[in-house]
Amino acid sequence: MSEVTGLSHVAIAVPDIATAATALERKFGIKAGPVHENTAQGVRLAYIDLGNARIELISPLSPDSPVAKFLEKNPAGGLHHVCFNVGDLDAALAVAIGAGARQAGKSGNNVHGDRIAFLNPREVLGVLVELEEKGVGSRE
Amino acid sequence: MSEVTGLSHVAIAVPDIATAATALERKFGIKAGPVHENTAQGVRLAYIDLGNARIELISPLSPDSPVAKFLEKNPAGGLHHVCFNVGDLDAALAVAIGAGARQAGKSGNNVHGDRIAFLNPREVLGVLVELEEKGVGSRE
Repeated sequence: MSEVTGLSHVAIAVPDIATAATALERKFGIKAGPVHENTAQGVRLAYIDLGNARIELISPLSPDSPVAKFLEKNPAGGLHHVCFNVGDLDAALAVAIGAGARQAGKSGNNVHGDRIAFLNPREVLGVLVELEEKGVGSRE
Repeated sequence: MSEVTGLSHVAIAVPDIATAATALERKFGIKAGPVHENTAQGVRLAYIDLGNARIELISPLSPDSPVAKFLEKNPAGGLHHVCFNVGDLDAALAVAIGAGARQAGKSGNNVHGDRIAFLNPREVLGVLVELEEKGVGSRE
């Protein structure tokens, strides 16, 4: 039985969130919400709600953040990760890891209070996958 | 006013669709549908419906396909593009191009009969963006 209940968001790493948000608004008429900081993950971020799912814009808070390293290789920005909604983070992680995935870092919480974890791209088709268990009443 | 009405899919380029589908099913319990070929785009593809949006798995039909070039740089696979739903493809393209985007190739149709077009990553945060106008009665 699937633990994945939907596609939460696609993350785009960008050098500057305000500049990126303006570019996307002018080209596609889509609007980013307020900018948050997640110091535990070393990122600044903003969401664009597309109705059924979201775009997450992320930029590094410091030069040693993994997102900073991504931008060194992709200075203009680029697709950074995809996030699946799951009903139960621990159960979903157990299934994925049982099938050969490896967790990147530790499970934590995002700016909405959701529980999240990342899986190393090496074992998942070269894709950094985030799993997100919605916190009760956490969504803005 | 926004022309974008939702997030259609996130595409993952993979060397082999059947192998990738099995890996995603074992790790996340998500299942790919039948494999299609789009000879105009030079790709083989399959969709994983996550309820609110889809994952598209794509692999090259020939060594000179742009997806083959992507896989030369990313042999294990990787996030390839993101696709937005739009109400009117021509109107959405006009807005995006008016704001500095450039179309990659020509507008065409996907395997579902939707009208689609791609925008060059260079002008869109390093991200290959597909726009998709749903064909009437086209979805399987």
